[in-house]
Amino acid sequence: MGTTRLEAFSDGVIAIIITIMVLELKVPHSPTLGALQALVPVFGSYVLSFIYVGIYWNNHHHMLHACSRVTGGILWANLHLLFWLSLLPFVTGWMGENHFEAAPSALYGCVLLAAAIAYSILQRTIIKVQGPQSSLKAMVGNDWKGKLSPLLYLLAIVSTFFWVWVAQVLYVLGTILWLVPDRRIERSLSHDGA
Amino acid sequence: MGTTRLEAFSDGVIAIIITIMVLELKVPHSPTLGALQALVPVFGSYVLSFIYVGIYWNNHHHMLHACSRVTGGILWANLHLLFWLSLLPFVTGWMGENHFEAAPSALYGCVLLAAAIAYSILQRTIIKVQGPQSSLKAMVGNDWKGKLSPLLYLLAIVSTFFWVWVAQVLYVLGTILWLVPDRRIERSLSHDGA
Amino acid sequence: MGTTRLEAFSDGVIAIIITIMVLELKVPHSPTLGALQALVPVFGSYVLSFIYVGIYWNNHHHMLHACSRVTGGILWANLHLLFWLSLLPFVTGWMGENHFEAAPSALYGCVLLAAAIAYSILQRTIIKVQGPQSSLKAMVGNDWKGKLSPLLYLLAIVSTFFWVWVAQVLYVLGTILWLVPDRRIERSLSHDGA
Amino acid sequence: MGTTRLEAFSDGVIAIIITIMVLELKVPHSPTLGALQALVPVFGSYVLSFIYVGIYWNNHHHMLHACSRVTGGILWANLHLLFWLSLLPFVTGWMGENHFEAAPSALYGCVLLAAAIAYSILQRTIIKVQGPQSSLKAMVGNDWKGKLSPLLYLLAIVSTFFWVWVAQVLYVLGTILWLVPDRRIERSLSHDGA
Repeated sequence: MGTTRLEAFSDGVIAIIITIMVLELKVPHSPTLGALQALVPVFGSYVLSFIYVGIYWNNHHHMLHACSRVTGGILWANLHLLFWLSLLPFVTGWMGENHFEAAPSALYGCVLLAAAIAYSILQRTIIKVQGPQSSLKAMVGNDWKGKLSPLLYLLAIVSTFFWVWVAQVLYVLGTILWLVPDRRIERSLSHDGA
Repeated sequence: MGTTRLEAFSDGVIAIIITIMVLELKVPHSPTLGALQALVPVFGSYVLSFIYVGIYWNNHHHMLHACSRVTGGILWANLHLLFWLSLLPFVTGWMGENHFEAAPSALYGCVLLAAAIAYSILQRTIIKVQGPQSSLKAMVGNDWKGKLSPLLYLLAIVSTFFWVWVAQVLYVLGTILWLVPDRRIERSLSHDGA
Repeated sequence: MGTTRLEAFSDGVIAIIITIMVLELKVPHSPTLGALQALVPVFGSYVLSFIYVGIYWNNHHHMLHACSRVTGGILWANLHLLFWLSLLPFVTGWMGENHFEAAPSALYGCVLLAAAIAYSILQRTIIKVQGPQSSLKAMVGNDWKGKLSPLLYLLAIVSTFFWVWVAQVLYVLGTILWLVPDRRIERSLSHDGA
Repeated sequence: MGTTRLEAFSDGVIAIIITIMVLELKVPHSPTLGALQALVPVFGSYVLSFIYVGIYWNNHHHMLHACSRVTGGILWANLHLLFWLSLLPFVTGWMGENHFEAAPSALYGCVLLAAAIAYSILQRTIIKVQGPQSSLKAMVGNDWKGKLSPLLYLLAIVSTFFWVWVAQVLYVLGTILWLVPDRRIERSLSHDGA
């Protein structure tokens, strides 16, 4: 099996995840700006998760691009990643509706952490299948972002026991970490387009 | 990276947005035509937004068609556009349920305005990547529709402070502006089919 | 523009329509078979609509297959068809929840009628674009099914004023009409596979 | 017709099914871990169904891969399978919300059984179309997993009348049966990649 259908299926699931999250923004019954104001935290958590899903789609895309052969192990490592991402709408809604309180913020971090671990497992599975000349291994390099992110989420989970706002700051930092253009990826992209 | 997967992902998200909007049409519990009548404004706002999303899908399609190389900047400019479009179901439901009152109508205009700006940013990003011989730049021409639309939405937002119905008229005008067949695009299409 | 992305987008929308209809089957809170029994009419209307959407997907697929060039007119005729299909989850839920009473059954027929007309408009638009040697025109032939269906739905709508059950019988007949294997299409399919 | 669009449509429907199941995990209004605890059975049933849908996607993918020609019979056998899979979110939610009681657990088994039968019908339809030299027939072999699964579900349904927990054990066994790597499929995959 080539990666085409794996990509298509993953794209479908990620597109649905990113879009159904907006359903947690429940339409208020009154037409006042006050009714809207109550939704600000839900909206904030929606923006945060939208960016995270966007980053995952982006990275997932590049990872599969470097992979040409799909085994049963890769299939299930991929579904494992999609499973954790599918929980994002739930934890996003819970955190937003409860104004970023401790327990929901910690659970949000747990899902991010689990997704990061699942991503890393998928990456390792592909590299292992590709063998010593793995093109993905070369592309990923030392992968300091992939190693730093789980630590960030772990720190955020722990911080919810003391100061909840620290967790939010760390979650935002986590997105900035990946949003800053990455020379490696840009290079690989321009190679592709050339 | 080519545009194939970017197109596929955008198509997925837009297809979901256009379809989940219908979920705001809540099934009434009584089987009378009166129960249905209460849904007329929600239905009206649904029709309006369906056309807007259709126009965006259409234009987005032609824009990406003229683009052959995808950079990180294009990826994120595209996600930025999808973000604003993903808010359409929410503002559509709010405006419809509250019978086109001032605040929801203004917010509807804000989302349309933000989407129009995001579209224009994406367009400029692609043109910049393509360089001086940009085929998209040639296709878009002076882009008077793209320049007029944001003004229309801005006017609509302002008008909600005085006469709300003016905003609705402007939103309808905004769809007509794009629905009228465009010779440029028809030409480009027939070229394609030839 | 080729038909690839039009097909992909339509497939996406139809796949979502066929799947979100199941959300009208609201999970009952009690674990008894009695709670399930109350859902039987909703389930019945779901089965009916699932088959209708399946038929539309099937026919739509064959129609686009015979079409190689997409114009703005075809794009919008296609979106017009998707619009009416997108209302099916709503009317399915209304009809099922209200045990096939007159008004919801009539509205169900109206949406089927509108979708049938939209389908016929799309068909005529493609044939017109293809010109006198239209391959779609040859494939469709005298199109007696396409002509009989709207009459059936119209009859069903009228019958809801007198005997509601007649409408249901006609809706079921409408699916059988299309489910019975069609020699023309089978031929065209086997040609394809050959 | 080739299998491309049949695959794409099935992928879309399966991607939506696997993702909307998470909507049954209703966001609790209180931010306590206790509120989360009440969701544990719903989460458990979600994990179970996620794995089942993943297995179906996986197997469906390999089956269609071995099929090159699509007839009307295959189309409808495929929609028949998608129909039963589309009921999984409903029965998953019902079983989870009611803490794996007898009636919902039995219904869950009925849907799994119906999906397994539908899968087997689709498989036989494809093999019949391919004729005596069927490549799918060779790939499937004696299909002991496909024969054992329905028996397992049947046993689970019966067991709900006596000890409900036995049914759950059997459902978990049913996933393990398919998750254990299959030498045949791995072989066919590595062939593909070679």
